[in-house]
Amino acid sequence: MSETAPIRLFVDTPLPGPGTHGLTGDQAHYVIHVMRRGTGDRLALFNGRDGEWLAEITATAKRAVTLAVTRRTRPQKAEPDVWIAFAPIKKARTDFIAQKVTELGAARLMPVMTRRTVADRVNTARMHANAVEAAEQCERLTVPRVDAPVKLDALLAAWPRDRRLLFCDEDLTGTPILTALMAPKATALPAVTDDGGDAGESASVTTSLTSSVTSSMTSSWGLLIGPEGGFDDTERARIRAVAGAIPVTLGPRLLRADTAALAALAIWQAALGDWAADN
Amino acid sequence: MSETAPIRLFVDTPLPGPGTHGLTGDQAHYVIHVMRRGTGDRLALFNGRDGEWLAEITATAKRAVTLAVTRRTRPQKAEPDVWIAFAPIKKARTDFIAQKVTELGAARLMPVMTRRTVADRVNTARMHANAVEAAEQCERLTVPRVDAPVKLDALLAAWPRDRRLLFCDEDLTGTPILTALMAPKATALPAVTDDGGDAGESASVTTSLTSSVTSSMTSSWGLLIGPEGGFDDTERARIRAVAGAIPVTLGPRLLRADTAALAALAIWQAALGDWAADN
Repeated sequence: MSETAPIRLFVDTPLPGPGTHGLTGDQAHYVIHVMRRGTGDRLALFNGRDGEWLAEITATAKRAVTLAVTRRTRPQKAEPDVWIAFAPIKKARTDFIAQKVTELGAARLMPVMTRRTVADRVNTARMHANAVEAAEQCERLTVPRVDAPVKLDALLAAWPRDRRLLFCDEDLTGTPILTALMAPKATALPAVTDDGGDAGESASVTTSLTSSVTSSMTSSWGLLIGPEGGFDDTERARIRAVAGAIPVTLGPRLLRADTAALAALAIWQAALGDWAADN
Repeated sequence: MSETAPIRLFVDTPLPGPGTHGLTGDQAHYVIHVMRRGTGDRLALFNGRDGEWLAEITATAKRAVTLAVTRRTRPQKAEPDVWIAFAPIKKARTDFIAQKVTELGAARLMPVMTRRTVADRVNTARMHANAVEAAEQCERLTVPRVDAPVKLDALLAAWPRDRRLLFCDEDLTGTPILTALMAPKATALPAVTDDGGDAGESASVTTSLTSSVTSSMTSSWGLLIGPEGGFDDTERARIRAVAGAIPVTLGPRLLRADTAALAALAIWQAALGDWAADN
């Protein structure tokens, strides 16, 4: 048995219990040829629903690995219910956002097209791949959902009424972000764990969030980050008109879009998410 | 006069008042050939001490630009007194840290060599160039100081007694970061604006921080981020033994070193820095 730290792999198949599990294609190639693992080496598997399982390689072929799944090492548990909507930017920075917000625990990535969005097309498969890789490396038990890009108006029209929308506005008229995040907590608004009309919620997320594990979560939030150059005035007025919208400011310096996304999510986690004392 | 948004340039020379100012070398090349500006176009200049000044190009030569500095558009003002010490990582990620922590308002970047630091050499000139570029773009009035790399033991031995050290520990035994940051504020410890024995403080920073503008600043802090793989146990014990050390945790996921640096600094700014309601 190898002394090397186990590789973690996200699999898109059920992990119902001990038994045999097969890897094929790119995952088999990655395990055998990139990570140079072989018979007797251990892996950790997770699928976003069934916790984390220890597995041992029992056989390898050219593009196939056979695993014996032995025992569950971590149970699935509730994760913070925070979405992040952002205007896609050029490729390297969008890769970066996908990786970093996954590490920082975002539940759902929502590319949103605004008037000043310069990205001509959004590669959601690439964003998903970046999210999977980050989830594998950061010990996370889920992979965030990656949405197809939507126009800002569509995002706002479909915004769930019981989900707060933290609007990171470049205009400095918003509330300081931490003040805004602590206010609802202080006034003890009822926690919301059901998105109501949001039929698009991914099956993997809803399945994992049974009522027994969501009880400690604060409530449902989304963060909205603008494009470089900001939202225009019409867009800003529409965002502010959303029922749960809370305009906030991220200080006096002009942040790049990727910096703003990371900063806002980190502060949210520290105040209301699973970095906070009482979550 | 051009309608284009003025370029911001950091200059390392005094800006005592209206008059003539010359640019040479790379900066002249950048203005003329990269940004394609010419006679009549406006620039904004800052040097970290004298505020921001509007200037107009009055003449250009092959590697020289002559400017008429006309009026001060922003006064110099106090900035949060927060340092960030981090183990350098591979080149692209160190570039990224230098850019992002500049945007996020760090006053001083301190590369620190730990037992598990893998970077064989640290290019501080490159870090400074990244910091200058980020400062120019984010509307900041200063460029953070970039230190030469030091060993962890030397950093800790010289740590000012009146400066808190927020130790971002991968071990989950630390206090949740926001709890730790709000505690000293809540208990109203006296604000500290003088580092005492820290003779290495940069002239540009001390010159700008006159007593009249530091009064609103909370106190002096430094954030310490470990290498990928973490500090070893001996190092962790030494850090915790520093008088002002506060070990904190950044949640249950394993963060990359660059993610941890950004997240910790953003949360610090939101709680105690110039993103907070009362600063």
